[in-house]
This record gives sequence, C-alpha cells and structure tokens, in this order.
Amino acid sequence: TIYGITPTYARLAQKADLTRLSQTLMLVKNFHWIVIEDSSTKTKLVENLLKESMLKYTHLNVKTHKLKHSTASGVEQRNVALNWLREHLMKIHDTKGVVYFMDDDNTYSLKVFDEMRKIKKVGVWPVGIVGGMRVEMPLVTDGKVSGFNAVWKPFRPFPIDMAGFAINATLFIDHPEAKFSRKVQSGYQESEILKYVVTKEELEPLAENCTKVYVWHTRTQTPSILNPKKLKHPPLPDGHIEV
Amino acid sequence: TIYGITPTYARLAQKADLTRLSQTLMLVKNFHWIVIEDSSTKTKLVENLLKESMLKYTHLNVKTHKLKHSTASGVEQRNVALNWLREHLMKIHDTKGVVYFMDDDNTYSLKVFDEMRKIKKVGVWPVGIVGGMRVEMPLVTDGKVSGFNAVWKPFRPFPIDMAGFAINATLFIDHPEAKFSRKVQSGYQESEILKYVVTKEELEPLAENCTKVYVWHTRTQTPSILNPKKLKHPPLPDGHIEV
Ligand SMILES: O=c1ccn([C@@H]2O[C@H](COP(=O)(O)OP(=O)(O)O)[C@@H](O)[C@H]2O)c(=O)[nH]1
Ligand SMILES: O=c1ccn([C@@H]2O[C@H](COP(=O)(O)OP(=O)(O)O)[C@@H](O)[C@H]2O)c(=O)[nH]1
Ligand SMILES: [Mn+2]
Ligand SMILES: [Mn+2]
Repeated sequence: TIYGITPTYARLAQKADLTRLSQTLMLVKNFHWIVIEDSSTKTKLVENLLKESMLKYTHLNVKTHKLKHSTASGVEQRNVALNWLREHLMKIHDTKGVVYFMDDDNTYSLKVFDEMRKIKKVGVWPVGIVGGMRVEMPLVTDGKVSGFNAVWKPFRPFPIDMAGFAINATLFIDHPEAKFSRKVQSGYQESEILKYVVTKEELEPLAENCTKVYVWHTRTQTPSILNPKKLKHPPLPDGHIEV
Repeated sequence: TIYGITPTYARLAQKADLTRLSQTLMLVKNFHWIVIEDSSTKTKLVENLLKESMLKYTHLNVKTHKLKHSTASGVEQRNVALNWLREHLMKIHDTKGVVYFMDDDNTYSLKVFDEMRKIKKVGVWPVGIVGGMRVEMPLVTDGKVSGFNAVWKPFRPFPIDMAGFAINATLFIDHPEAKFSRKVQSGYQESEILKYVVTKEELEPLAENCTKVYVWHTRTQTPSILNPKKLKHPPLPDGHIEV
C-alpha cells in the first residue's frame, strides 16, 4: 500500500486542486489517501469530495498554530497523519507499505507511484520546477546518491523537496519518535524527517538513476476576485454555490 | 465520442499541466483528444506524452501569428482542429459526438464529461474562478437560460468562458463556416464560435440547472527560475533532462 499524506487548507482553488489530484489517484492501485485539513473542524467540501472519489481514504483535521519563527506549512497535519498511520499499521498487523508526503497542488505522474513500490528504506528522485531550478535532483554515482543538484540552501543535510522521496512505512514503527518539527529553519522539514530514518549513503536513487522527472512542484495561481460590493453592476450573490 | 480540443504551447509547466490533464482524461470513456501545438513543428515532448498516455488522440500543430490588435490564444489551433474534425467525421460516416474546447491548464471534474453527453445542440454550465468571480454562470428560469451572472464584459452576446460549453459535433458539419477569428475583441472568441451554431434561447442548461461547478479556470503559476550563470555556486547543467 502507498500511503499518501496530504495536508490541505481552505482557499478558492482548493476544490479544483483536490479534484484533479484525486482523479490521478483513482488510477493508482493499492493507494490509501490520508487527507488532513488545516482546520479546527472537518469541512463538508473535503468530506464530500473524498466520499465521492471512490478512493480508500482517511479524513483527519488539525489547525496549524504557527509560531513567529516557523512559517512552514503542513507540520502539524503530517504529524497527525503519521500518528494515525502508526496505530493503523499496528492494528492491521501489516507494516508493509510506503509513505509519500503529497502536497495538494503538486503534479504527480502515475510513474512516480510505480517507482516507489521498489523502495527498501527510502527512495529519492528528481522534482521539476522547484527551488529556483528547472529540476532539483540527487546526483548518482555508481548507483548511489553522491550529492544533490540544488541551489536553494544546498548545505541542508538533505537538500530535497517533500515530493522527491518516499519512506518505507515500517520505518515509522521502528522510529516512533520520527516527526516534523516547528523548531527547524525554513526548508529543513525534509531533512528533519529523513534524519530519523535514513543516512545519505542509504538513499535509493529511483526514476532511472534520478534522470527522469515524474513529479512537479506546480503551484496554482491565486485567483483575483473582484469585490461585488465595489462593482457598479454587482452580480447576483453566488455564496450558496460550492466552488 | 467527446472530442476535446486542446491548444498547447511550450513553457516550463507544460509537461506537468498536460500530464495531469491526460491522467484525468484516461478516466473518460469514448474520449478523443485533439492536441494542437502552438509551434511550427511538433515537439518530442508532446509526441511522447500523447503516445504514453494510452488515450485516443490526434496530434496537430500550427504556429500563432498574432496580430497587434488580437492577443487571443488558441485561435489558429482550434480552427485547425475543427477542420481536422470535419474531415474526420465525414470519413468515418458518423457525425455523432460532442466538441469541447479544453485549455491545458484548467481543471476538469469527471462529472463535466457526464453532463455533456446529454447535449442536443449546445450545453452550458458554470465555470469556477474565472472573470474576476468565484463562479461565472448562466442564470436559469423554468429550465431555460435567461441570462448570465458575469461581471467581465457582461454585454458580450455569450458572456461565458470557453470551458463553460460544449457543442454537438454535427453542428460543425451543418455550419462549415463556423470558426474562431482574429478579428474580434478580447473575450469574444466564445461568442464568435457560438453565434454560428446556436441562439441564447436554445442553450441547454446542464450541471443541475447550472447550480454545480464541475470545471475551474485554474492557472498554473509561472515558476521563477534562477539564472545559473548568475549564481556563485552554479548547479550542474540540467538541460539534457526533460521537465
Ligand atoms: O496554511 C496552510 C498552507 C498550506 N497547507 C498545505 O500544505 C501543503 C504545502 O503548502 P503549499 O502548497 O502552499 O506550499 P508551497 O507550494 O509553497 O511549497 C499543501 O498541501 C497545502 O494545502 C496547509 O495545510 N495550511
Ligand atoms: O501563446 C499561447 C498561449 C496559450 N496557448 C494555449 O491556449 C489555451 C489558453 O491559454 P491560457 O491558458 O494561457 O489562457 P488563460 O488561462 O489566460 O485563459 C491554453 O490551452 C494554452 O496552452 C497557446 O496555444 N499559445
Ligand atoms: Mn504547493
Ligand atoms: Mn488557462
């Protein structure tokens, strides 16, 4: 089973982004979607979307309480998901699986899911359009990760985006303390979680030795909506329509 | 058959956008994708993507020659597709089908394809986050389109986005002159094509009488890429990797 962990928050393009992501996931075999709303209550929008998706899913929620010095997104949400996952794996007596942290606005080719089924500990691969680069990627020598082609904070222990790796689920049972943290600097969440479960030497390069791009750090443009109150000819109210 | 007509042009997020759109289309039955590159030659990127998609498709290309007063996108591309379609329908002796103009960066719920199979002449439905509104939509009275909730150029004959309608394919045989035009003002392409094939009174409101949003005019943010030449520690060249 691939456990996809997706934090999500209310915004105008949320339903659009979740809709196209869910439609991709419908094509992935043995996939379990863990969706965590950044919200103090679960919303009808996400609840109905998950219900209608026909996917195997778990719907959680927890509101972010940002500290002044930590603006990272998804920290509390991913931790809640990891705790749910640990309990779930124990309960079903089956710790086989792979954990992938999937932002709701990225683009995932179906091929990335095929790659991650080969993972023993932690697999890595290139990520398109991220960190100021066309592609950020692990460098591979003799089938081993020998470095990283990254320009944004290349001195990080793992200069790699959240979309660029997946982790054998068993490792979260072996390392019950593994979690994301509000105490680390911007860009260090990936390094934070990876440090518990793997060393650089152990990383498994996938996607044809990290030469193929199967995932893109796309972002959906924030739409600019006119304020109906400021219009000469205001439209009929549309607040009753879910968008 | 639903004939989806998609103009596309080379840019950093092109492969990402086409990948997620193609993965949605893989779930649509009886779909034929007509992809027209805005380019003087067909690219390997689009060719391979279509080949690997397992979709039924037709790959065309034509380069836009923009006139000063017309900046609309996709005009020549959609016209080339319509001409291809006319020949195709004649050749297969089967003019049954629906034509939908699909931009490559929009978001399409599978539900919109179910709706368009009900079309007799021209079906219409709401479009999310477009034209400065949460949702632009036809207004329906007694099962008929009585007006439009639009704030951007509401005086257009059909104040409706390209994603908000689909047309019975037969009408393009009945109206061989129907096409898009470089001679109309910005925002009038939809009105231009619709004027050949339908009157406002004949529009068929779909998506539960135009109360549901099944398509969104999303846009993918243009990524900002650093110039490697200007970096103190330039990364290894990555031009050989397709993104
Ligand atoms: O306040 C927020 C902002 C973001 N996110 C989620 O956290 C992930 C990463 O956020 P985003 O895509 O905005 O980050 P970026 O594209 O800047 O890396 C996404 O799944 C978002 O839905 C969240 O839960 N709460
Ligand atoms: O120079 C261009 C710009 C756009 N397009 C295509 O035309 C459609 C509409 O363009 P875009 O999405 O940029 O328009 P907008 O989002 O502003 O309506 C899309 O399928 C694009 O890929 C094109 O073929 N050539
Ligand atoms: Mn994002
Ligand atoms: Mn667009």
